[in-house]
Amino acid sequence: MRISQLSTASGVPVPTIKYYLREGLLPAGEQTSATRAEYGERHVRRLRLIRALLEVGHLSIASIREVLAAVDDEGMSMHRVLGTAHYALAPRIEPDPGDEEWRHARDEADRLISGLGWEVDARSPARTELAQALLTLHRFGLSTAEAALRPYAEAAERLVSEHEIHTVARDGTREEAVEALVVGTVVHGRVLDVMRRLAQESASARIFGTPPA
Amino acid sequence: MRISQLSTASGVPVPTIKYYLREGLLPAGEQTSATRAEYGERHVRRLRLIRALLEVGHLSIASIREVLAAVDDEGMSMHRVLGTAHYALAPRIEPDPGDEEWRHARDEADRLISGLGWEVDARSPARTELAQALLTLHRFGLSTAEAALRPYAEAAERLVSEHEIHTVARDGTREEAVEALVVGTVVHGRVLDVMRRLAQESASARIFGTPPA
Repeated sequence: MRISQLSTASGVPVPTIKYYLREGLLPAGEQTSATRAEYGERHVRRLRLIRALLEVGHLSIASIREVLAAVDDEGMSMHRVLGTAHYALAPRIEPDPGDEEWRHARDEADRLISGLGWEVDARSPARTELAQALLTLHRFGLSTAEAALRPYAEAAERLVSEHEIHTVARDGTREEAVEALVVGTVVHGRVLDVMRRLAQESASARIFGTPPA
Repeated sequence: MRISQLSTASGVPVPTIKYYLREGLLPAGEQTSATRAEYGERHVRRLRLIRALLEVGHLSIASIREVLAAVDDEGMSMHRVLGTAHYALAPRIEPDPGDEEWRHARDEADRLISGLGWEVDARSPARTELAQALLTLHRFGLSTAEAALRPYAEAAERLVSEHEIHTVARDGTREEAVEALVVGTVVHGRVLDVMRRLAQESASARIFGTPPA
């Protein structure tokens, strides 16, 4: 198909497709003449994945490029592809390693993770992210006791082991499996986050009362 | 205290404090001479809140300004303060209202929310955010059936009703209650999100195996 048809098929405007081509997010089409290239189903698929990472995951173009490189690298294990997606989703935090408060929070995060029996790489950015959340709770005098945080860990573990694991174990090609893994991570993460805000809004409406229309 | 002492007490560098003063995030200190201003505990508190919204919530300066205005507006109900925080946390999504796919996803999100019995404002940005997640799941042929999404809703509802509600109901001044509400929303949201990625990483390590060191 031509670029205009690729635009219709994917719902992505032609100038945006050209931008993705320039940025190397989308592989070039097959050149059929000096001014014309032919695109196929893999381009439609790739655009769908870029949109999901952009619109739902709010990843930067640089992060999307990294995730796509992992998806395309057939020699990369599924575990490492997921790690790349996680890394892209985690905000960049650069703690001062000499900071006492930080070291304490980081130790606490590490203890919490091992207490849960989770197998997590020592360099996983999620450890730093958890430490930052704990540090902030400390500053506000809010509890970081294991008992206060366990409900979050348990809710997360239940969703992953009872539901999300099936997304990964689907039949299909490696490409489909990798896509499902990446999309599931990003989109279901967003679903959980938005559900929590919806549940909060509803609880708040009941406790504090809604103002009259 | 002087600005240098405020910096030590809050852990925020002096140039950053000056930037917050210029941006109107931090109220001016009491001017004691032409070149000297005196700051107090409320400035320390405010800096703590700004840091949490920035570092954990990743809110923009403009969004933080809106949230702080809500926190300071004593005439604003707690329900509306929470709504302001939620609004700041929700990504800006501007769907094309004429788009058939969008209308369908939005109807689906609305049905899901009413099926859960949740009391959510018709203009809540979380509705649009949920619709976008559903739309993306559709595009990938992933399930948006009520049965597939209910576990996320139930996990969210359980956390809110069994744990987060206590944060709000704490004794204390309005300022403390509002702060706890805003911080709880932002930080516990981050905790849940990061716990899910940690649980995923652990499950993935077990399924796919970790590469040898």
